[in-house]
Order: sequence, then C-alpha cells, then structure tokens
Amino acid sequence: MSSLLEIFGQGHNAYFSNGPITRLSFIRLNNQLLDKASTHPSAKYLTFNELNPLRSPDGKLAFSRYEDVASAIGRPYAKDEKTQIAEFNPADHHPTLIFLGLDLEDKSATTGENVQLGQYSGVPYFALDVSPNHYAAFKESQATAGLKYVPTRIDLTLDHPQAAIYSHARSLIDWNNRNRYCSSCGGRMLSTHGGAKVVCPPADNGVLRQRACPTRIGLHNQAFPRTDPTAVIAPISADGKRVLLGRGKRWPANYFSCLSGFIEPGESIETATRREAYEETGVHIDRVQIHSSQPWPYPSTMLIGVIGQCVEGGESITYPETELEEAKWFELAEIEHALNNGANPMWEPPIKGYTGPRVPPSQLTAHQVLRGVLRLFHK
Amino acid sequence: MSSLLEIFGQGHNAYFSNGPITRLSFIRLNNQLLDKASTHPSAKYLTFNELNPLRSPDGKLAFSRYEDVASAIGRPYAKDEKTQIAEFNPADHHPTLIFLGLDLEDKSATTGENVQLGQYSGVPYFALDVSPNHYAAFKESQATAGLKYVPTRIDLTLDHPQAAIYSHARSLIDWNNRNRYCSSCGGRMLSTHGGAKVVCPPADNGVLRQRACPTRIGLHNQAFPRTDPTAVIAPISADGKRVLLGRGKRWPANYFSCLSGFIEPGESIETATRREAYEETGVHIDRVQIHSSQPWPYPSTMLIGVIGQCVEGGESITYPETELEEAKWFELAEIEHALNNGANPMWEPPIKGYTGPRVPPSQLTAHQVLRGVLRLFHK
Repeated sequence: MSSLLEIFGQGHNAYFSNGPITRLSFIRLNNQLLDKASTHPSAKYLTFNELNPLRSPDGKLAFSRYEDVASAIGRPYAKDEKTQIAEFNPADHHPTLIFLGLDLEDKSATTGENVQLGQYSGVPYFALDVSPNHYAAFKESQATAGLKYVPTRIDLTLDHPQAAIYSHARSLIDWNNRNRYCSSCGGRMLSTHGGAKVVCPPADNGVLRQRACPTRIGLHNQAFPRTDPTAVIAPISADGKRVLLGRGKRWPANYFSCLSGFIEPGESIETATRREAYEETGVHIDRVQIHSSQPWPYPSTMLIGVIGQCVEGGESITYPETELEEAKWFELAEIEHALNNGANPMWEPPIKGYTGPRVPPSQLTAHQVLRGVLRLFHK
Repeated sequence: MSSLLEIFGQGHNAYFSNGPITRLSFIRLNNQLLDKASTHPSAKYLTFNELNPLRSPDGKLAFSRYEDVASAIGRPYAKDEKTQIAEFNPADHHPTLIFLGLDLEDKSATTGENVQLGQYSGVPYFALDVSPNHYAAFKESQATAGLKYVPTRIDLTLDHPQAAIYSHARSLIDWNNRNRYCSSCGGRMLSTHGGAKVVCPPADNGVLRQRACPTRIGLHNQAFPRTDPTAVIAPISADGKRVLLGRGKRWPANYFSCLSGFIEPGESIETATRREAYEETGVHIDRVQIHSSQPWPYPSTMLIGVIGQCVEGGESITYPETELEEAKWFELAEIEHALNNGANPMWEPPIKGYTGPRVPPSQLTAHQVLRGVLRLFHK
C-alpha cells in the first residue's frame, strides 16, 4: 500500500476545525498589511460580547464591517509593534482584536473588492471583543438591526465552516482577555501580532517599570496562545471485543463517554492515557494508538482521541481515586447501536424511543474515536 | 486482528517520558499526605539551580534528602490550602517545590523505610528550585560533596528513567517560576497542589487586593501547568516513495529534520500539519495520521509526530514564507541509511566517516516518526 488512506482509512473532518479561513500567520508580523486588511471594505468582523458571538435571527454568525466598529477601535494597526511598545499606556483603550486570516475563495466579494495582501487576495476576517462599555453604541445599533448575542454554553448547532471560525475566534479572544498581566512580573501586557502574541512593555505611559521581566529576553512561551492537550480515551479489552466507557458524577442517567484528562508536562499522550485510565478506573493499558484530534474552544482545549488496549487481565474496574460515577465495559455491537441511534448532547433529552446507553454526538472526539474502535475491531 | 500491536506494530518508548514514578495526582490535593511524604527519610529531592539539575561526577542526577533542605524549606505542606491562601504573604519565602509522585517499585528502601500514603507504599520524589540566595548554604554543602549543577542546553545523555524524572521536574519548576503573577489581575500567585496548580489569593498579608480577579471563580485553565503541543511533520509524496525534510537557517550544513510548528487554538493537529507544511514549503497535504508523541522539557512542549501525505501534484516546493534555509525530498532508502548511520544531535560533529544527510538521534520524535514512515512505506 502506498497511501495513508489505504492503510488507515478516511480521516474525519473534525468539527470546530478546518474552516474556510487560511491563517497566513506571517501576515500577523506586518502591521501595514494588517492595517490594510482591517480597514478594507471587504473585511468581516465577528464580534463577541462576554464570549458569545453576534448572530442573525436564523442562528448563524453575523459579521460586521469596519465602518461599523471604526469609531470604537480607530486604526489599531496604524503603528508598528516597536512604536506601540514605546508608547504603551495601560489607561488607553486597547481593543481585543484578532486577525483570523483570509478567505481566499470567498465569492461574496468580486475580485476588485477583495483585499490584496502581498501575493494573497481574499476576504479578511477579524474577531473583536465588544464586552467593554466602550462598545455600547455599536451593540445598540446591532440590536436595532435584529442581531443578538445569545448566551450559549457549548454550541454544536453552527454549520461546519462557521463552527471553525467561531472556535478560532473565541479561543483567541478568551486568551487575550486572560493575559492582560504578565505572569512573570505582573506588569500590563500589550496584545500584538494581530492578537496572536502578548508582550510585556518596559514602561507604562513613559514611566519605566521597577521590575525586570524575564519575558523581555529570550524565548518565552507564555507570550503565545496556549492550547491544552487532553486525552479522550477509549480503552479496549485485551481481546479487542469490548470498550470501556465512563459516566461523570453530574451526568444524566445512562449517558456514557470516553475517559478523559489533561496531559501534564513530562508526559507523552501515551503515558497520560495510561495514567488517566488507571487513576479513573484501575484498568491497565499497554499499547496506545492516537486516533485523531479536534480543537475545543472552551477555552482552548485540544482534544486528542486515543485508543488504548488493556494488558491481559488488566480490565478489572477498581476506581482507585475516581471522578466517575460509574465505569462499564460494553460489547462493540452495543456501542455501534448507540452511536447510530442514541448519540446526542448530554444537555438535551434522550432521543425519542431510544433506551440504550446514550453517547456523545458526531461533533465530538469521543464519538469519532469510538467509530475508530469499531472500524479497527468490529468486523 | 484483535490488537493494536498487530495492526500498528510495536509502539516506541519515548525519551523524556514513561519513567519509574507514578504521579498519583490525587495525593496532590491532600496536604497531610504531602507533609508526610516530603518530610520522610526515604524522600528524594532533585534540586535545580537555574533549571540545571544537581549531578554526581558520573553525570547522573544526584538526589538529596529532606534533612539536607529542611532548614531552607521548613515544612511547606504543614498547612492546608485554605489556610495558606488566608495567610498568604508574598514577602515570605515560598519554595518552588514539586511533588513528582511515588516510585512504587524502588528497592533502595526496605519495606519498613518506604512511606505509606493511603493505600500506596513507595519512595516519594520531589523537585526543588534552589536558585534563590536563600539556598546558598545548601548549594555550598553539595559542592563540597563533589556534586555540581552543570549548565546544559539540551540533555540527551541521561538514561531513560532519569530523563523522564528530569523532564517532569524541569517543566514544572519552570512553569511555577513563570507564573508568580496572575495573568488575569497581576496579583502574586500561590503555588499549591504540590506545585501542580497556582491560585490567586484575595489578600496580601491580610490586605485585600483592589482588583477583582476572574480566576477566583469558575474553571480557569491558567491555574494549571501548560504544555504546548507542537506538530513534528514528515510529509510524504503522493506515491508514498519520498519524504520531505527541512533545514533551519542556523543549522549545520547537511543537517535535516522534520518540519515543525506549534498547534494554534482553533486548529486540530491535522489542520496545523497542513498549515505548517504549506507555510514553510508550499506543499499541499491531504490525509494526516498521528504517529506518536513525546514531552520536551524546553520548557514544556509536547511533540506530536505526524505523517502527512501530499495530494497528487502537491509536492512542489515554493517556500511561501519560510523559516527554512532549505527543504528537500529524499528517497526512503536514503532516509533509512541516514537513520542507521548518520543520526546524532546537530550540536555535535557529524559521525566520523558519514557523509550523507545528517538526521536527529533516536531520542527525538523526528527520528521516530521517520522510522514510522519507513515501517509503513519502505518494504
């Protein structure tokens, strides 16, 4: 065989990722290109109020134009990073604004209306946090136009392309808002690189800070957006015939999903899988295979679906120190039936007429990694 | 087939992970167990000065006992978290101290000498940062005993179990030191949960802070140690016969490795693989399969090895915005020869007599993912 497709089968297109926007990350470093993109008539701004995106009455994301927000944000990329650092004043309004990238295929603008950034032409996308009072006039105008910021806990209703834009935008707005102060020295931070980096300026409004900050020299990872890798684990029995699922303490009756846990520093995905499965259920996993991944914008988790196979005799459930209400081995045929007939979000009522174990819907890694188990072991 | 081993072959035991210590993460929440473990005669302290671990003359990690550091750290877990938060005074000395876990198999202590923590018995391990002047007497005593903190850029010389302990310890000490201040409000943080969490106390030495801090309510991911997932990418040609490697701008002549890049919020590992490969070399990848992973303690990266296959005709190298000096397609036979004969760290001289392309040593994900490519496609 000469292709990954033949060997591993079709990959799946994970929800919350793989949208229409090309990030073109090198454009972030160029304030002149960002200035051109952000002020262009074709630019689309997705605004967030308290992390909820603006929506039209049909529930779709609603985009605004630069002229709608111009009076509130001015020209945020007019000056280069060096000048912005030199002139930094924490008392000024610094918009939480993210350059998401270009849609190179957008047909809504004719060629003449697309923005040209170096060799790339397309429709630029930005995300903007309008939670501060500063944006009261803008928010009022949008409400008048029938657009709303609807509070949503976890949104699985957007179509795939919009879900990817939302995921990217929400995670970065949240990260910027959580990083207003430097974790190394406590000084106010400046958001730069189109919202994809924060820097710690040496002075506030011209007054030099007292504390030396280690982030001003060398490579410092706290300056860049974080993602938190989390293993979503499907343990299978040594004979490959059963899969272990768990039920959290506050979950609805009969709702089961994969085990999961954050991957810690000094752990591989594989060792974290073994530790988490052991800590939560007492089972002993040996060989681990990573299946696929998905971003999860609450706030910026990276879900990594893994399959782990128990050693012979390692399937006993003992709950050493569990966060689970229950863990249970299922036959693969029962899981197949559940994925096909009983898969929906736990915050919705069970599907009518379905009485088997409930499982997560297809938008979630847990569902996809179980599909992967079936593909490999359920012939 | 009924096992992951049959389907995917033997997994590899990644360097910097999978050591002798069981983390038992639930012990971190219990200050009484931590107090017992940290003051126990069997406890092993790995001390770090400026992120370099203490070593014996043969280069191995050198561990200290509680009595060696007692006068400097006191009994750091004597009080519970609630009391520590209530009494928090940033002017006090707060040791950067990490509970690593228990070695449940350690034969160096007899059963009577092992510590008993709930149902677990073993040798407890801690990591301690002795960089502050506070530890001058301890450091002098260790130097007198012939032990040294040797500055090392990247250490691949430790044996596998010690490399795993070092990786875990170094990443967490570094993370604690980078998170002395709250990124949401700028207040001083308190390290808790055995060094695996930081919290933002509401008062300093009894004086209530002026700023409300969002981390004091709800779930806040900046309170937990970060890992930064990075894709280590082996692009293969559409026909599965060649692999693409790159050479960084400051790398030695003829040294090649996988492409790589941080995974951003709103990206899956798979979409980040496509973006990075395109941004760095211009090639177009379709199907992506994740191979394996490895922690990388500089400072707390998570390397994720991936194989990505180009679409038909997507192999042209155009360098849209490259950070590379060069990118080049190699036949698989040449890569096999290089892995077997020319693999060593780039900061060492080439292996004597070897004149082909140089590649990373077996301790690195880049080496292992290339082995994975050979296993799948080089028959």
